[in-house]
Amino acid sequence: MDYERSELIVCGRPLQQFLDDIEKFHGFTAPGLVIGGFMVDLAQKKIEPGIEADAVVETGSCLPDAIQIFTPCTTGNGWMKVVKWDKFALSLYNKKTFSGVRVWLDLEKAKQFPNVYNWFMHLVPKKELPLEVLLDSIIEAGDGILSWCEIQVKPEMFKGKKRELGICPACHESFSRIQGEVCTSCRGDGYFDFQGLEAV
Amino acid sequence: MDYERSELIVCGRPLQQFLDDIEKFHGFTAPGLVIGGFMVDLAQKKIEPGIEADAVVETGSCLPDAIQIFTPCTTGNGWMKVVKWDKFALSLYNKKTFSGVRVWLDLEKAKQFPNVYNWFMHLVPKKELPLEVLLDSIIEAGDGILSWCEIQVKPEMFKGKKRELGICPACHESFSRIQGEVCTSCRGDGYFDFQGLEAV
Repeated sequence: MDYERSELIVCGRPLQQFLDDIEKFHGFTAPGLVIGGFMVDLAQKKIEPGIEADAVVETGSCLPDAIQIFTPCTTGNGWMKVVKWDKFALSLYNKKTFSGVRVWLDLEKAKQFPNVYNWFMHLVPKKELPLEVLLDSIIEAGDGILSWCEIQVKPEMFKGKKRELGICPACHESFSRIQGEVCTSCRGDGYFDFQGLEAV
Repeated sequence: MDYERSELIVCGRPLQQFLDDIEKFHGFTAPGLVIGGFMVDLAQKKIEPGIEADAVVETGSCLPDAIQIFTPCTTGNGWMKVVKWDKFALSLYNKKTFSGVRVWLDLEKAKQFPNVYNWFMHLVPKKELPLEVLLDSIIEAGDGILSWCEIQVKPEMFKGKKRELGICPACHESFSRIQGEVCTSCRGDGYFDFQGLEAV
């Protein structure tokens, strides 16, 4: 498929730019992220226009980057939440009224696009389905493999809990007190061991 | 401070571009994210050159975006991990050898820059410390408020657990079986209620 000549607009940009933006941020043109882009595009078309939307993604793979590339929501600004259910679904919702839309990969619809279905369900070895072929199928499918519905997000789910901050008496860094008297690292449950030089 | 004329290079780019890139991705020039940029810059200078590095951030606020803007690691590609300890620290480590560096905001050093210290410790009301003044102080401080050390990341901490995938018999979407017979949403513990129309 000649992406450069395509007239398809996804997430407000021409197809080739849509794909370039994915590669630039994510490091490569991940098939799941291309599907994720179509999901964001559909959600943006279905949600009431002109509102400030927060986002939820239901898997830690690929979809968080679709939200981060194509909406203002990021991990670090707190407007995107990730729930790790390994569900290929995302939601955008009005941050004031909590009403919004949820979009997901509909497996029944995906069966009409065997390359996409077989890739997603791990039914075909990677070497038998080259990336270019898979991407062509994903782009051909577009939002034809997606379903959506209106939702009302439960406000209590993502309320920022104010956590009491303190200074760890062992490392003298600030931390949330919920971890106990000392921070998780100083208790020995951190992700690293000290190595080589002392702190500088 | 005239950022345009500054000769400071942070994360490989001139100061004004560094600040513009933060605003573009994060939505605004968050002070914590500017400090985070200096933290990434220091980590990149201290880690062995030319290696592929994965990242860990120890708070969900601001620092994830510093990593995502200034390194190839993102939430969606899995190269950045977030541990929610509310510690203002981040690590970069060699993804093959697991050796790396950790950088943190050193409160003792920060005391030399009262605006930065008072803002971080919530000792001054926002209206008494305008953003421009705070940003000037943060940029003046640069890496003078940071400490770093070498670390060895425990490989078992971030090993991708292969989770068994299935299809939820209620919603017919794919999900990880660890959630039970049906998925979390169908069990009634999801983050939303259905609203209005059926699925389309």
